[in-house]
Amino acid sequence: MTIRVGVVGTGVMGADHARLFAREVRGAVLGGVADPEEERARAVAGNASVFTDPLQLIRSTDVDAVVVASPDHTHKDTVMACLEAGKPVLCEKPLAIDAAQCLEIVRKEQELGKKMVQVGFMRRFDPCYAELKSTLATGSIGIPRIVHNQHRNARAPEWFTAHMALTNSFVHEIDVTRWLLGAEFVRGHVTEAPSAGDIPKGDPLMITLETDTGAIVSTEVFMNADYGYHVHCEIAGTRGTTSMAHPALTRTRLDRAERGAFPENWIPRFADAYRIQDQSWINSLLDGTHKNEGATAWDGFVATTVAEQLVTAIDMGAPVDLTLPEHP
Amino acid sequence: MTIRVGVVGTGVMGADHARLFAREVRGAVLGGVADPEEERARAVAGNASVFTDPLQLIRSTDVDAVVVASPDHTHKDTVMACLEAGKPVLCEKPLAIDAAQCLEIVRKEQELGKKMVQVGFMRRFDPCYAELKSTLATGSIGIPRIVHNQHRNARAPEWFTAHMALTNSFVHEIDVTRWLLGAEFVRGHVTEAPSAGDIPKGDPLMITLETDTGAIVSTEVFMNADYGYHVHCEIAGTRGTTSMAHPALTRTRLDRAERGAFPENWIPRFADAYRIQDQSWINSLLDGTHKNEGATAWDGFVATTVAEQLVTAIDMGAPVDLTLPEHP
Amino acid sequence: MTIRVGVVGTGVMGADHARLFAREVRGAVLGGVADPEEERARAVAGNASVFTDPLQLIRSTDVDAVVVASPDHTHKDTVMACLEAGKPVLCEKPLAIDAAQCLEIVRKEQELGKKMVQVGFMRRFDPCYAELKSTLATGSIGIPRIVHNQHRNARAPEWFTAHMALTNSFVHEIDVTRWLLGAEFVRGHVTEAPSAGDIPKGDPLMITLETDTGAIVSTEVFMNADYGYHVHCEIAGTRGTTSMAHPALTRTRLDRAERGAFPENWIPRFADAYRIQDQSWINSLLDGTHKNEGATAWDGFVATTVAEQLVTAIDMGAPVDLTLPEHP
Amino acid sequence: MTIRVGVVGTGVMGADHARLFAREVRGAVLGGVADPEEERARAVAGNASVFTDPLQLIRSTDVDAVVVASPDHTHKDTVMACLEAGKPVLCEKPLAIDAAQCLEIVRKEQELGKKMVQVGFMRRFDPCYAELKSTLATGSIGIPRIVHNQHRNARAPEWFTAHMALTNSFVHEIDVTRWLLGAEFVRGHVTEAPSAGDIPKGDPLMITLETDTGAIVSTEVFMNADYGYHVHCEIAGTRGTTSMAHPALTRTRLDRAERGAFPENWIPRFADAYRIQDQSWINSLLDGTHKNEGATAWDGFVATTVAEQLVTAIDMGAPVDLTLPEHP
Repeated sequence: MTIRVGVVGTGVMGADHARLFAREVRGAVLGGVADPEEERARAVAGNASVFTDPLQLIRSTDVDAVVVASPDHTHKDTVMACLEAGKPVLCEKPLAIDAAQCLEIVRKEQELGKKMVQVGFMRRFDPCYAELKSTLATGSIGIPRIVHNQHRNARAPEWFTAHMALTNSFVHEIDVTRWLLGAEFVRGHVTEAPSAGDIPKGDPLMITLETDTGAIVSTEVFMNADYGYHVHCEIAGTRGTTSMAHPALTRTRLDRAERGAFPENWIPRFADAYRIQDQSWINSLLDGTHKNEGATAWDGFVATTVAEQLVTAIDMGAPVDLTLPEHP
Repeated sequence: MTIRVGVVGTGVMGADHARLFAREVRGAVLGGVADPEEERARAVAGNASVFTDPLQLIRSTDVDAVVVASPDHTHKDTVMACLEAGKPVLCEKPLAIDAAQCLEIVRKEQELGKKMVQVGFMRRFDPCYAELKSTLATGSIGIPRIVHNQHRNARAPEWFTAHMALTNSFVHEIDVTRWLLGAEFVRGHVTEAPSAGDIPKGDPLMITLETDTGAIVSTEVFMNADYGYHVHCEIAGTRGTTSMAHPALTRTRLDRAERGAFPENWIPRFADAYRIQDQSWINSLLDGTHKNEGATAWDGFVATTVAEQLVTAIDMGAPVDLTLPEHP
Repeated sequence: MTIRVGVVGTGVMGADHARLFAREVRGAVLGGVADPEEERARAVAGNASVFTDPLQLIRSTDVDAVVVASPDHTHKDTVMACLEAGKPVLCEKPLAIDAAQCLEIVRKEQELGKKMVQVGFMRRFDPCYAELKSTLATGSIGIPRIVHNQHRNARAPEWFTAHMALTNSFVHEIDVTRWLLGAEFVRGHVTEAPSAGDIPKGDPLMITLETDTGAIVSTEVFMNADYGYHVHCEIAGTRGTTSMAHPALTRTRLDRAERGAFPENWIPRFADAYRIQDQSWINSLLDGTHKNEGATAWDGFVATTVAEQLVTAIDMGAPVDLTLPEHP
Repeated sequence: MTIRVGVVGTGVMGADHARLFAREVRGAVLGGVADPEEERARAVAGNASVFTDPLQLIRSTDVDAVVVASPDHTHKDTVMACLEAGKPVLCEKPLAIDAAQCLEIVRKEQELGKKMVQVGFMRRFDPCYAELKSTLATGSIGIPRIVHNQHRNARAPEWFTAHMALTNSFVHEIDVTRWLLGAEFVRGHVTEAPSAGDIPKGDPLMITLETDTGAIVSTEVFMNADYGYHVHCEIAGTRGTTSMAHPALTRTRLDRAERGAFPENWIPRFADAYRIQDQSWINSLLDGTHKNEGATAWDGFVATTVAEQLVTAIDMGAPVDLTLPEHP
């Protein structure tokens, strides 16, 4: 059996998903792509059908399952349309632009009585994060006590704000740390740097969270770190630590220095993670379980609601208690 | 289109290829497996056909292409049977047990007038080696002057000899260094360590080769290095060097030390290489070119003839000139 | 000229200073040692005079300058006695047990109109920290925006509290970060981990400080990190980062892992720092300037008052503004 | 007691020794310096006496012990003059320009019946090499089976030849490997690279030695490695390996790469080694033993005779047996 995947949105991420389903993922083909910019859609479609209206793609009999990679504000309606059409959906993060919208999706899926939604928190499929999690599972480092994350981009657009750093970037750490620790966050504090030169206020951010398992999670989000794209995670437990190695496969020695390269952005860093995520999603559809390590709609909601509550903490300049509604 | 692959030999390597074609490689299915030990074959076959006679598998209409992973001494006849049946073949290294047999295959393929054979020197598909090669191609390290290889196994079987270290292990470095440098070897010298405790004479070996491009290639082959499986390559040029980073994705700190793990053997180290190799082979069949980065029959012959000539060097205790017949 | 140094207190640190002045530091000899436990004093004295009363040592005509390495609560009186005797003093950190006492020393020294006191914040003389500072001075990493410190001990005594972690351990980071950045702290927040197994509440601590130069300084203090003694510092600026390399000189590969060792405690980690500090102090006495990179009495006061104010922050569970009196 | 050291030769190395005895080494003062270029001598002398004739320095009553750092061809006569004057001598490597001259010194010292000569193979005092040796002594890596050395300079003068690479550079590896392993070399082979661009024939060299303890020692000497000065040593034994870590204390991340610096030349790399060597020499004179980890006249002879015999091997293009006369 082969899953015919439709991709909504053909920007950088959508084009990459389209490529993966057209060429790399086993058990899938690219069934169609949709984008209001038809030319852009056509450029990534290959032999697949092209739509300018995502609803047509979603309803098309050529499409069994849908990837949503259109702009964030369209996620909710597009995912809802998939649910109405009874088609499994892999939605790029964030699941929706606010927690209320995320919760609508959670409830809609629940009404259908079947897991239909996966959120594209691809770090769960990154071999580095997976190895951290399997090391934790062995118990060798004891009980996790403190997690340090670094989330650095070379350069953010000028219009990028500290609020967006929380709701759009830091959501990755919220999700992957919950997944690593099997924990929920109960309290959080955000410290923002003042502006410096052409770097705006709120970059970097230092976020300190506390979990219901007694761990501290400290994260630097630095969107204008300049030297490259760099994601790092270290977990210190009662017996020892585990952390990511530098991601480069090789080292070069030139001009009085040994060098290990950093990528320009997240795409090369997480190329394996995207491939494994998309394959794992297809496998979960082929085997009928619809289940894998991926984030559920509820996970997508939690990431967004925690980020929103931290926006409040930033504005208050003081720690806030973080709350979750009961899992429906 | 889908290639139905038959796997001859269901030992460790054959089983792994069978798994790859059954579950990971896009565009392929497992068409059949053959092994004189029928039970072993059945264990890896899944729904695919099972044969005890490799010739039956090769001739089967359920099989479009063949992987040879049976014992080394059977390679030549099995590959020749594939050629006679007109079926493309991916043969585990070495291509045959001696250079003369390899040359027979080279000639047979040439008579057919079509590239049909790929030799399973999977390191060419390892992302580390690939990054070394792409760094060389940029010219940043200048002209390659010296290559250092380390090829270490945790433990070799008692019956493993220095001759086998050359013809069975070091052939990997012969092939991959030729591929990296685009060079042929013109002279070689082998130094063998005397026995020490339970480690036999000839382990480690230190092999020094000279290329027709003016580079020196020095390789340690140490089959009883005890601490783990470890392959390392460094290339020093007129402007700088490039080398493999430690292969572990994460580091652990425990008991007064930071640790980066080494695998037990080559299978986890080269898991990506085998997957990419097998996918690349299938892609080359699907696109009809039968061409990719993989080793040709001629490359398989060169690796074996160089190793054989170095066996002579070991026995003489002096450097030997290395020669190749004209490429047919 | 040779400085005859008297050492007050012959515990671990005092014994080490005595050894340095007796054998390693050029331009100094060990003039005397004082300890109420005479036997312990005698064991480290060699040919130097032995006193049970520190005041006798301080007033002795055999002693030109004094190192204070007695218990913390005795620091103030001992340093004051040195000032009264007109003898330069190198006092182990903290300068005194509270900020008020430190300020008394600052004022007393000021009355004398001459720099007489150095505080033993030896990290300023550590070659790693010195290289971080010289890298900052080149401007290559731009304007410092965020500093991450890790301060990990293998094991703390049972009676060690989170308050002590601030006033006795974290004072090192307060001092060395001020020195690195040339900045003062204006605001701080402390997050303490709840108890876990046999690890008490408040270990680890996560401390987030803001400087008057617009940098964030985040520090983990983990007194029961188990795996070893480990101090790490990374500074991220607007152009790049600089950070400490793993401190081990060699790597070992054994049992499926490459290892870099961590020391048991701070003494081997900072052996060079203590030697260079003590030599630098002697040099500053020999050249009559009494000045070097070392911490002044004021620096000693600042470290203690910031730590005390953070104790308040811990107790309040919220960020506090950090204030300094005017520098007298 | 204080040793008054006279330094013969005030080039780069002599000036550095003069600085060490004038300012860093405890128990020593700079008693005098000698150089035919009086101005150069005066620049490093400070308050010490200046001589243009080394014999006058050697015989001066202001000088208790002598460092020889004049051009290589003057070593023998200068050292002999020290022996005649009954003054201990630390001679920069090589001890003399050929093995015959070295042996004269060995015999002369023997006639005096007292150890008087130390050869400046400073790597024995380098903390990295010392840690390799102490790791070997624990037995943790088992019996040493293979040693890999890399000896790379950024750039050699145009007149530097492969013969000089053996007698002037590689002598360091000959000495330090004998010291590490407690072994003598019995056979050796040298492979020289052909010329490439502006790099002459014989650079790099690959030297393979066999020891009387059954180890193989392979060394790359690359005088025009361009990227920096880099000395590396790895020892692989029957249970594991130990090797030098990258020598930089800090890492920097800039422009898409993490960097660890290499020095321009050997002076910063071995600054600690020179200081510790010179201190250790003074300590051995102060305690009257004249003994420490340093190389003896015999060690100096062995390094030079092995290098000379390898020059023969280069010229023959084949391995040679290495022999030593009986130790007088």
